[in-house]
Amino acid sequence: MKRAIATVCLSGTLPDKLEAAAAAGFEAVEMFENDLLTFDGTPREAGRLCTDLGLEVALFQPFRDFEAMETAQRARNLDRAERKFDTMQALGAELLLVCSNTQAATLDDPSRAAADLREMAERAGVRGLRVGYEALAWGRHINRWRQAWDIVRQADHPALGLILDSFHTLCLGDDLAALSDSVPAEKLFFLQLADAPRLSMDALSWSRHFRSFPGQGELPVADFLRDVLAAGYTGPISLEVFNDEFRAAPARRIARDGLRSLVWLAEQAGIAALPALPQLRGIEFIEFAVDEPTRAALGAFLVPLGFVRAGVHRSKQVELWRSGDANIVLNAEPDSAASERFEQHGPSACAMALRVDDAARAALRAEALLCSVWQERVGEGERAIPAVRAPDGTLVYLVEEGGRAIWEDDFHLEPQAAPSLGITGIDHVAQALAPGFLESFSLFYRAVFGLEPEALFELPDPYGLVRSRAFTGGKGAVRLPLNVSESGRTGTGRFVSALAGAGVHHIAFAVADAAAAVDAAGPDALLDIPPNYYEDIASRFPLDDDAIAALRARHLLFDSAEQGVEFRHAYTDAFRDRFFFEICERRGGYAGFGAANAGVRMAAQRRGALSGATPRAHARHTDGRTATEVNTP
Amino acid sequence: MKRAIATVCLSGTLPDKLEAAAAAGFEAVEMFENDLLTFDGTPREAGRLCTDLGLEVALFQPFRDFEAMETAQRARNLDRAERKFDTMQALGAELLLVCSNTQAATLDDPSRAAADLREMAERAGVRGLRVGYEALAWGRHINRWRQAWDIVRQADHPALGLILDSFHTLCLGDDLAALSDSVPAEKLFFLQLADAPRLSMDALSWSRHFRSFPGQGELPVADFLRDVLAAGYTGPISLEVFNDEFRAAPARRIARDGLRSLVWLAEQAGIAALPALPQLRGIEFIEFAVDEPTRAALGAFLVPLGFVRAGVHRSKQVELWRSGDANIVLNAEPDSAASERFEQHGPSACAMALRVDDAARAALRAEALLCSVWQERVGEGERAIPAVRAPDGTLVYLVEEGGRAIWEDDFHLEPQAAPSLGITGIDHVAQALAPGFLESFSLFYRAVFGLEPEALFELPDPYGLVRSRAFTGGKGAVRLPLNVSESGRTGTGRFVSALAGAGVHHIAFAVADAAAAVDAAGPDALLDIPPNYYEDIASRFPLDDDAIAALRARHLLFDSAEQGVEFRHAYTDAFRDRFFFEICERRGGYAGFGAANAGVRMAAQRRGALSGATPRAHARHTDGRTATEVNTP
Repeated sequence: MKRAIATVCLSGTLPDKLEAAAAAGFEAVEMFENDLLTFDGTPREAGRLCTDLGLEVALFQPFRDFEAMETAQRARNLDRAERKFDTMQALGAELLLVCSNTQAATLDDPSRAAADLREMAERAGVRGLRVGYEALAWGRHINRWRQAWDIVRQADHPALGLILDSFHTLCLGDDLAALSDSVPAEKLFFLQLADAPRLSMDALSWSRHFRSFPGQGELPVADFLRDVLAAGYTGPISLEVFNDEFRAAPARRIARDGLRSLVWLAEQAGIAALPALPQLRGIEFIEFAVDEPTRAALGAFLVPLGFVRAGVHRSKQVELWRSGDANIVLNAEPDSAASERFEQHGPSACAMALRVDDAARAALRAEALLCSVWQERVGEGERAIPAVRAPDGTLVYLVEEGGRAIWEDDFHLEPQAAPSLGITGIDHVAQALAPGFLESFSLFYRAVFGLEPEALFELPDPYGLVRSRAFTGGKGAVRLPLNVSESGRTGTGRFVSALAGAGVHHIAFAVADAAAAVDAAGPDALLDIPPNYYEDIASRFPLDDDAIAALRARHLLFDSAEQGVEFRHAYTDAFRDRFFFEICERRGGYAGFGAANAGVRMAAQRRGALSGATPRAHARHTDGRTATEVNTP
Repeated sequence: MKRAIATVCLSGTLPDKLEAAAAAGFEAVEMFENDLLTFDGTPREAGRLCTDLGLEVALFQPFRDFEAMETAQRARNLDRAERKFDTMQALGAELLLVCSNTQAATLDDPSRAAADLREMAERAGVRGLRVGYEALAWGRHINRWRQAWDIVRQADHPALGLILDSFHTLCLGDDLAALSDSVPAEKLFFLQLADAPRLSMDALSWSRHFRSFPGQGELPVADFLRDVLAAGYTGPISLEVFNDEFRAAPARRIARDGLRSLVWLAEQAGIAALPALPQLRGIEFIEFAVDEPTRAALGAFLVPLGFVRAGVHRSKQVELWRSGDANIVLNAEPDSAASERFEQHGPSACAMALRVDDAARAALRAEALLCSVWQERVGEGERAIPAVRAPDGTLVYLVEEGGRAIWEDDFHLEPQAAPSLGITGIDHVAQALAPGFLESFSLFYRAVFGLEPEALFELPDPYGLVRSRAFTGGKGAVRLPLNVSESGRTGTGRFVSALAGAGVHHIAFAVADAAAAVDAAGPDALLDIPPNYYEDIASRFPLDDDAIAALRARHLLFDSAEQGVEFRHAYTDAFRDRFFFEICERRGGYAGFGAANAGVRMAAQRRGALSGATPRAHARHTDGRTATEVNTP
């Protein structure tokens, strides 16, 4: 089954688009006419470019506003078609997409439409070409596939068939019920696939700006594909996406995302098997790229949260810091991927490790989904841990549960003697992404790891909105909020600018008792929260004055979904105005992230950053000693 | 009549917002509760901050999900109200906004809603406070002002009144008909104003992200205000706008825009007079900030378009270049605003001059609309030309028509002996704006100069979409397309990044005969257009082969709105990958800008930029001579 992509999905000039499609592994393209118009060469040269890249031109599109016009216009439209047939023959495209007429002048006359399409198909057939008719969701009279099929059936010409598009059908709440009963397989000429988030706007604007690849949106595209295949369709499966961000993003990344979405969709639709999804057990560690002085400073920053140095790597300048069951790796190894990242972007997370049931199978799945799998050089006796490269180039390590902990193989572990905060693990890791990266990351986490999207939140930073959607899996074992801001002035926007891409913006540690944890850390280690916040939650939740005072004294934020389902959490300031940490306690199965408190947290952090204050957690515990000194008796 | 603004309109911390509102000249604010929650001080301290800045807190808002709940919740809601009354008294706010309930649990029972609001008003009244009830457009049962008024009437308490919001009424296609007959003036407690572009999406999303200040959108806000005033309302006129870009933009600019919109709206509604709009007669010149070498290079770049040096300034290092009736000023004066701009941003337009009927009146109008009016130092005997500062700091000179031309006063004019292209003037000037600037510029051109917005176009740059809306006035004498791109990779996006703001991206010169003009310039001076473009227009327009060949040979693009209403135009490459020039011929009253051709032009220019080719117009005419040498016999 051939996999195709419409050139309009990708940015750049026609050669850029074609090269990106070929590099990703597509076998065919839909030539979008506008990309040919702006190409500085003949259609024949464009066709040769495709051939040289191993790409078939499976479709030429769109041909608009053709059928059911008054007689004078009909003749002009047929002349126009003949010219496009010339172009198609030079290009080497055999199939033309005609979309249903949107003009006010088009007649509501299916017989006339059928006669026009028959005439067009007759002319196409003479040249060995074919015509496919597609119902646009906003077509003037024809906007459902059943109507388009009635016209194709009535026209009854072998060179005329039906083109189906998942967006045009699903955006109207329609489906393909009765397709296999009503349409012969040989009349299904082409299949276009697109997903989209569910938005309440007119179909045209929705289609033009917000389509996405299957798996990046919320439409039942896998069901759609299953229905088309059940009807006997054997032609190419082709992506046709209009998306403002895809148009602006590098063509090669988007093309790879596109093919990944088709590989995943084939599995979802049950027509191809992939290595099974990993079972997710938790987040084993987060690794930061640092240099030596930053390693000391970041270690010291973590001390109030109960972190102590728990080990040093056997062969590298890498330290393990640990608080309870949460692990942070500080990597200052020279001439490594981490050091390169540090030099480019300063201190930032360079890797995350997920605990999975079977690391080898998870890596095979990632490879099948076009991810590069990476294996760092290992010292003698050290564990080989595979890692999958995320869309921004950072690594997701796959740590297999069971057997000896990786730390025992690779690290000289040290005795720990620090006050415990009762941290039971990493609750969630929030990543800040440049806006154009959201769909890439969504698909990556969903397809490779089976994480599913949660509700979208809009968080009010003092300097703009931040959109946040968490991806979760393993029954809450892995929670990854993805944050995006169009504004470059928000905390998210400034962090993304500093990293020139994406990165871990904060790490939340799970505790069983947030109040006890704050008491152990000392409330001054945690972000101060304005008193008005506590006035407000006193009015919103059934908490008595003592409960409010207890939260306030500990700088704890509070949220509750319903009686007994509660969230208590507190934050640090940002380390060097970059990333920060959180401790959180979930009660009664609370599943969110305290989104209602985000505005208060963002304003408080911003005040800290603007006042130029040394982060409290840092200032309080260093006292002129380095982190290593704090940890070393 | 007091002018107010809701703190939610502006970015930053509460003190930032209040200082910006006061600096712009507002007399009052609506305190948005979230801004108080994130404020690091007590409500009393927030109130004192307002007082110190001369701002009244005219409203505290919003109080949500109050009325018509089941009995248990009713008691909790009244407790919540009491707490907010405490806050209001500390803050010094006398009026609370209660918006109609959106909860699924709220009862469809107006009597119950009236009883609840009466109880709340009774409690407020005891404290000397008042309650205003507002119908949210997406309220569960109450979403029209007439429904809200029915409830307020039924509740019948002196401390309870109605709050009107232009967005909530107009977004539903509703109006204020019968307001003055049905609602006594003393029951109109507060008025919120917002405009918005007409978008087809749900009212909630539309309201939360796309509201704008009056005059920046398409809703009949002036009519709305007139109706409210006709009903006897005498309270504050207050802006309440939720807009993603305003939240991210500097608070002081947005606050100034806000007050400007109210000043303009008062004129539109007929309650205040401003100096009359200028009558616009054309664009007299565009001025570029350059240094000496750039002046020579840019002059040479303009030579193929028939430009020659026509004069030198009497006292400054400024040259006038002229082709037909179009003037370009090249300003290389050291220690001037132009030289500062050049040093910061490289070669770019620093001023535009509009021909008006009365420069002094136009300047007075601009001042009344909060624009700074600027007057450069003049040499002896030189003309004083007032200039208005645009939102990006560039200047719009006001040149009065009639009497001696400014050039005769300020310049030593030189004889011209260059081949003429028949340029009759500047047809349009397109500006590229950072996304957050579009509303600022829209309001500026509309309010100060009376330019009206045309249709919005979405132009496909190879690296992202460019949105374009022209502002026109003086019956086509002044045409200013404003272009915005979210993508930093488009021509518009890259230009805006280079300027760190806004700037003139291209200048189109009007000619009576485009073919003759290209022949005079030499087609090689103009951007090469791919052959496929001509294949396509041959299919789209009734042009014979000769007509197509004639266009193609001259690199002319073509558009037609209807029979005989035609547009022919050609472009240069971009000067140093920045701004560029166009020549255009309008026939039969064609009013557009050839938007359908923009994609082809953008791709062709990008190819030129990527190939690193010296712009043809430049390469062809310099031949080792400087521009001055070209011009000097």
